[in-house]
Amino acid sequence: MASLKSWFPIPKSSHFSLANLPFGIISTTSKPTPRPAVAIGDHCLDLQEFAASGAFSSLGFDVSCFSKPTLNDFAALGRPVHRSVRKYLQDVFAENTSLADVLQSNKPLQEKCLIPKEQVKMHMPMQIGDYTDFYAGKNHAFNVGCLFRGPDNALQPNYTHLPVGYHGRASSVVISGTPITRPNGQILENPAATPKKPIFTPCRRLDIELELGAFLCKGNKMGTNIPISEAADHIFGFVLLNDWSARDIQAWEYVPLGPFLAKNFGSTISPWVVLTDALEPFRCKGIPNETDLLPYLQEKEEKNVYDIRLQVDITPESGSTTTILNSNGRNLLFSFPQMLAHHSIGGCPMAVGDLLGSGTISGTEPGTEGSMLEITKGGKESVKLNGGVERKFLDDGDTITMYGVCGTEESGLVGFGECSGKILPAPKI
Amino acid sequence: MASLKSWFPIPKSSHFSLANLPFGIISTTSKPTPRPAVAIGDHCLDLQEFAASGAFSSLGFDVSCFSKPTLNDFAALGRPVHRSVRKYLQDVFAENTSLADVLQSNKPLQEKCLIPKEQVKMHMPMQIGDYTDFYAGKNHAFNVGCLFRGPDNALQPNYTHLPVGYHGRASSVVISGTPITRPNGQILENPAATPKKPIFTPCRRLDIELELGAFLCKGNKMGTNIPISEAADHIFGFVLLNDWSARDIQAWEYVPLGPFLAKNFGSTISPWVVLTDALEPFRCKGIPNETDLLPYLQEKEEKNVYDIRLQVDITPESGSTTTILNSNGRNLLFSFPQMLAHHSIGGCPMAVGDLLGSGTISGTEPGTEGSMLEITKGGKESVKLNGGVERKFLDDGDTITMYGVCGTEESGLVGFGECSGKILPAPKI
Repeated sequence: MASLKSWFPIPKSSHFSLANLPFGIISTTSKPTPRPAVAIGDHCLDLQEFAASGAFSSLGFDVSCFSKPTLNDFAALGRPVHRSVRKYLQDVFAENTSLADVLQSNKPLQEKCLIPKEQVKMHMPMQIGDYTDFYAGKNHAFNVGCLFRGPDNALQPNYTHLPVGYHGRASSVVISGTPITRPNGQILENPAATPKKPIFTPCRRLDIELELGAFLCKGNKMGTNIPISEAADHIFGFVLLNDWSARDIQAWEYVPLGPFLAKNFGSTISPWVVLTDALEPFRCKGIPNETDLLPYLQEKEEKNVYDIRLQVDITPESGSTTTILNSNGRNLLFSFPQMLAHHSIGGCPMAVGDLLGSGTISGTEPGTEGSMLEITKGGKESVKLNGGVERKFLDDGDTITMYGVCGTEESGLVGFGECSGKILPAPKI
Repeated sequence: MASLKSWFPIPKSSHFSLANLPFGIISTTSKPTPRPAVAIGDHCLDLQEFAASGAFSSLGFDVSCFSKPTLNDFAALGRPVHRSVRKYLQDVFAENTSLADVLQSNKPLQEKCLIPKEQVKMHMPMQIGDYTDFYAGKNHAFNVGCLFRGPDNALQPNYTHLPVGYHGRASSVVISGTPITRPNGQILENPAATPKKPIFTPCRRLDIELELGAFLCKGNKMGTNIPISEAADHIFGFVLLNDWSARDIQAWEYVPLGPFLAKNFGSTISPWVVLTDALEPFRCKGIPNETDLLPYLQEKEEKNVYDIRLQVDITPESGSTTTILNSNGRNLLFSFPQMLAHHSIGGCPMAVGDLLGSGTISGTEPGTEGSMLEITKGGKESVKLNGGVERKFLDDGDTITMYGVCGTEESGLVGFGECSGKILPAPKI
């Protein structure tokens, strides 16, 4: 793939090359109203200001979406519009652009629109209607199943037939940088004792889950379904997702209706939505599924997931950063179109702004597991961090940062920036 | 309790006596914009028109909430305001009112504000942020547990220690009268066969769940909790809730993360929100809990649930109506304040408009079970309906109507109206 060169300075190592152009919501001290922007190198393009210059007039869509505090209205315009806006912006920023008069030769507009990223505050990109978390990372499901039920029964009988999922809590999805307070809750201190009597305590087994999230740009009417052949048109773009998990709270509460307080104290997403189109060149095959799927889950496209290099770092309060795992977006048994086709097959109404989580994305090799639970084999082993520190689960003051990136510096990186959160101590109750 | 007599004609049998005054959202042919109203007898009081007359000026709150298409803004004013508005309206409608000039002697305003209920269309009362369904109906949990695990292990060890709950789907909560389309999905036709291979089919075990729903009028910041002593102040009011359930889809999908498509094809609520204050006279003790609860779940008030007479009717497409069960709101092990204190104990942010479901409210006697699954002992027996018809689960064309009412005709009924939905056939896929 040839690199898209720009007249505008974009560092080679930036996740936000011309091949990317992800969308987010920014505010600045001088203009505190949140509004849409595009990330380009170390800068953000303020789309409200850019649109106000008439720059988009040739594209013929309603630019009022760029004066909104979320991307929902832009998303709702549909993928053909997203595609034409991204392509147009690539043309505006391209070297030897035929659109030089739009921005390259218009210094006053550059000064209005192009803001160094240190000067912006990021906000939630979408207003989330409903959030659903899937469990499509087969290696994770297998690893966790082994810990609880042994390798012979690690995966439940339904696992390869459908993308297992559950409803999450939309109100606790927060943007990268938001601190995460360790939850208090009920745990069984000694699960083997009878009778089972829980204690009240700050979570002792606080964990991460490395996931991808997909935002929807198109819904369906209640009582109808989204056919798998159309599902990709409903996906606006992707973010990194840290589905923070309280393992000890979960172990006690989750029968028979699933995880609840173990998940709803916080879920962190990266701030820039990487458009579905930007990931197209990085399509790849996921984990093979030997199961004969029912027709509504059969996809024509074999390359239905993305080759995204994923990394998770931990930084203790006083200490240096250690990378604790590297995984890849290909480690999924079901694709997002399959998740969406399944989610709606019974008529559940999906809407613009809904968020789908992939489930934890673990590889098969040591060092590729997407959660501490797997890395430490259920808390039996320790992870060694730089400076002689060890962890089984997360300590107060730890900062977890997730990264995801596709492509090469030569062709231009397509990345997610970072998805980060620091653990604050549990409140005294 | 002495009856509140009114100068305005309110039928004795009406759920909407002066002792009630529930809030909802209406529209009319002549004024199609949805806006808040109060139900009184066979009429609705259009609160937008009523407020525009200056009628609320002595109460000193911002009446712009009565020009909104949901009750969220009114709810957010807090329970002291709800209380004063309800009390004021009781005074306006009372016999020998000192406020006769407000409405009783103001015929032109009566004509503007008081609309026969046949002329109004009801809309969703609240914009729901997140919806959570609990499982606090101990008799239901026991009955269902017996069917799956036998009486000795019917309740999971956590059951009496915490209100078990799971996140539901906000987008599929609809108002009474909305048709419910039978979901398609994966089921195991023969659960005993190996290997387990699902088929794709319209749900064959479509069921109801009789529940109460509580809407919140106050939230909490992420990372903080709502103490149980304050939880009641967060509850705006109550509705009936039919948590339609696809039992066969649920049985296959729900391990290990809980119900998903079995629930998200539709959940029906009654249109009028009965204020928490209106239910105060009907407080009663719930199901005794022998378990020593952790302090954050300990309630001072022993009478923490409500004596609400509940009834469910079924009406086949061509056939007469049969009452299939009678239950009571007292059949709960945990109260709504306990559910809310638990929901937020780990720091989950709750918000105005959130909906909490109680879980299925079953009694202990035959004829009091809150779902077909229980009534028919897992589909083994049939319910006999009028006209020689039988049901194990719901047929296409069946209409289910739930009722709930407190008090007596003498003192004035406090009821929920009805919560109704008709089953449409599954779409062909």
